[in-house]
Amino acid sequence: MITALGFGIMSGDVLVERLQKIVGASGVLTDPALTASYTTDFTGGFGGPVRLVVRPGDTAEVAEVVRACAADGVPIIPQGGNTGLVGGGVPAPAGPAPVVLSLTRLTEIGPVDPIARQITVGAGVPLATLRAAIRDQGLDFGVDLAARDSATIGGMIATNAGGERVLRHGTTRACVAGIEAVLPDGQIIDRLAGLPKDNTGFDLTGLLAGSEGTLAVITRARLKLTPQLDHHVAALLALDSIGDALTALVRLRELPSLELAEFFFADGLDLVRAHASLPAPFRETYATYLLVECAGRTDPSDELMAVLEELDTVRDAAVAMTGPDRRRLAAYRELHTESINAQGVPLKLDVTVPMHELERFLADVRALVEGRATPYLFGHLAEGNIHVNLIGAADPEALADEVLHRVAAVGGSISAEHGVGRAKTRWLGLSRSAAEISAMRAVKSALDPQGILNPGVIFSD
Amino acid sequence: MITALGFGIMSGDVLVERLQKIVGASGVLTDPALTASYTTDFTGGFGGPVRLVVRPGDTAEVAEVVRACAADGVPIIPQGGNTGLVGGGVPAPAGPAPVVLSLTRLTEIGPVDPIARQITVGAGVPLATLRAAIRDQGLDFGVDLAARDSATIGGMIATNAGGERVLRHGTTRACVAGIEAVLPDGQIIDRLAGLPKDNTGFDLTGLLAGSEGTLAVITRARLKLTPQLDHHVAALLALDSIGDALTALVRLRELPSLELAEFFFADGLDLVRAHASLPAPFRETYATYLLVECAGRTDPSDELMAVLEELDTVRDAAVAMTGPDRRRLAAYRELHTESINAQGVPLKLDVTVPMHELERFLADVRALVEGRATPYLFGHLAEGNIHVNLIGAADPEALADEVLHRVAAVGGSISAEHGVGRAKTRWLGLSRSAAEISAMRAVKSALDPQGILNPGVIFSD
Repeated sequence: MITALGFGIMSGDVLVERLQKIVGASGVLTDPALTASYTTDFTGGFGGPVRLVVRPGDTAEVAEVVRACAADGVPIIPQGGNTGLVGGGVPAPAGPAPVVLSLTRLTEIGPVDPIARQITVGAGVPLATLRAAIRDQGLDFGVDLAARDSATIGGMIATNAGGERVLRHGTTRACVAGIEAVLPDGQIIDRLAGLPKDNTGFDLTGLLAGSEGTLAVITRARLKLTPQLDHHVAALLALDSIGDALTALVRLRELPSLELAEFFFADGLDLVRAHASLPAPFRETYATYLLVECAGRTDPSDELMAVLEELDTVRDAAVAMTGPDRRRLAAYRELHTESINAQGVPLKLDVTVPMHELERFLADVRALVEGRATPYLFGHLAEGNIHVNLIGAADPEALADEVLHRVAAVGGSISAEHGVGRAKTRWLGLSRSAAEISAMRAVKSALDPQGILNPGVIFSD
Repeated sequence: MITALGFGIMSGDVLVERLQKIVGASGVLTDPALTASYTTDFTGGFGGPVRLVVRPGDTAEVAEVVRACAADGVPIIPQGGNTGLVGGGVPAPAGPAPVVLSLTRLTEIGPVDPIARQITVGAGVPLATLRAAIRDQGLDFGVDLAARDSATIGGMIATNAGGERVLRHGTTRACVAGIEAVLPDGQIIDRLAGLPKDNTGFDLTGLLAGSEGTLAVITRARLKLTPQLDHHVAALLALDSIGDALTALVRLRELPSLELAEFFFADGLDLVRAHASLPAPFRETYATYLLVECAGRTDPSDELMAVLEELDTVRDAAVAMTGPDRRRLAAYRELHTESINAQGVPLKLDVTVPMHELERFLADVRALVEGRATPYLFGHLAEGNIHVNLIGAADPEALADEVLHRVAAVGGSISAEHGVGRAKTRWLGLSRSAAEISAMRAVKSALDPQGILNPGVIFSD
């Protein structure tokens, strides 16, 4: 844990002058008081010294900035809303001081193309701003996540952000029709036509999505939009086991309106209730809970109720038709993070396991940490995505290593949503084979032979 | 146009012996009578001399074959069902005789994973075989196309095949959860876990999808399955213009059950009716026709009828509730290809334009070819995908070049579904910029430094 405040810059830096000519004096930040919020992530867990922060105002300026840095061999760290959780968007604590290239001034929001149902936006547009801008046209963007007010579209694409609605809309990669990006040599690639069928070579848009700023700087995006759904219904299901929850999911997933299926357990519910003084959702206590939500252009309550009546593994269910009632049910799941953090700094892991391994894996993790930490496990059922939170671990790194080895043993992913960044490079080999890593490194070297874009991210140096 | 029959092989070829040791004597074909069906495509328009055809029986054999060929620097042409339309799966007419690596023996069909709703299959499984194998479990695969009996899953992924249901399910890339593939150095990458959330580096599955066999040989795939839908309704809509059809589409697309929206024109309908002696679908003649189909777990007729009643741009509509009636309506669209071919060998182009450019582009093409060829235009409305068929052109290459320049001028794709292969390399630069082509070439060189995998495909040598 380091604090990046107070790192200075070299005086008389010619790069500063060169970049000022490109973006204007106000677009280059060198004062540590001004750069601090760009050099450290919001958790305070990652960060390091910076040479300067540059804030270009359009794609052409981004390209010129990249060329200027490349000419000097200065590493570049592209940054969106700086809401990442793995240190991929801030400087490393050591090594040559990089330039942080902030994209937050790229805030253009183009008109909606109603026929293609697409929109072109700047990389720096925050998710919440995008959604607000298209709501009155009856449209929405498929991805939603807690950091919506700060997380930018460019950063979400670069990290292939997930969230709660992946079940319905896929991850960010699936919601993007095309991008514009600046390559490490300063060339601009433009895939903004957003054609749904275009078999003319490799899918560069998909390749850059999830590449965590290591291959190119995303400057604009063409987004697929989805109808705004005004009718919602939520239900909290009480079950005896995660196996029963999976059986329920298989049937619930047949509802086209299903967009959320979140699981948690009795211990998590107890913690949340104690922390927030909430009443019990049911008269009795159950081992496993599943929060589901359906959304549609028409009221999906009847179809959800019909399925719930069929499901004989559901021991009890609370259904919420109104907004306030839905928020009351959702709080049992949403307050997990806050309630856990109130217990101390947790060791947090974000993993996916194949769904047929989920029940056994959860039991294995509980057995593994028994007596060494208090586990709180919850997550997104339809993707086998578990947020592992361990409180009070004396040896967090060793425990993380052991849990991630279990993930690898069942063919899971050591980073479901958060990416690799700097935090997880040491475990990359658990989820990707040597052949894959060597193929990925070859692609990285091909597009960024100088290695100036986000060095140390995804791949350890 | 060349015929590949009769190309011999070198006698005493040591590569033959080496490959026979890997795949068995029956897995190496050298007799021109046996290799002919692998060396020429089904149209007879593409093909060339082959050194031998090798048919490995599993992934390990594929890897050994690739290593053996790489060691000798012998080019490899991966081939699935050999149903491609751009010559990407057969030898070039000139140059060093390559090995055709046929994947059709990789026919394993794994069990359905009902919780993940996925299946793992060999690259050589034909699409129709896959669909038949999962039908009794109430499941389907999202992509469907006319070559379903021969086209293999591996080939469909390699070419990112489209078809009629892209509107609902996306292209093949969107329907694949992961792949196994052999890299040009013989290393195997295994992305078969099919995890819906896995942010651990670059999306190699997505990169290989649509790479037309130039980056790796796909050996197995993990496919996303979709519920088998048993209730269908179709409607043929009569409209005054493609603009009115787009207006109708915007409303129709709000139906989650919509899975097909195909357009054609009065001249095409006349040709089909004359060729197949079909009655007129309507009492009057209209300029533009739109064939739509909805499918659901329950009967979608009512919701389709409700939308049709709202649409005041629809001049007339024929709705088909039964299978025979649906086939009668579908024939007006499906018989276009056969009816056009009966007029002579057409110049065929498969292009996408941005949907707001569609109406003007269609008019431009008609004006461009006026007096030089008879145009028949039809296609997939929701993707702006037009099958341009020109009959009687005296200068087909020049005409193709002019039409594709128009496509480029409006930001379209010169190959929507068919890929680049060998047929369209000269026009790649119309849809992809110099920066993109150089980035794609860099990726190709990174993964295949020897250039042994499908040389001359996508990129002209």
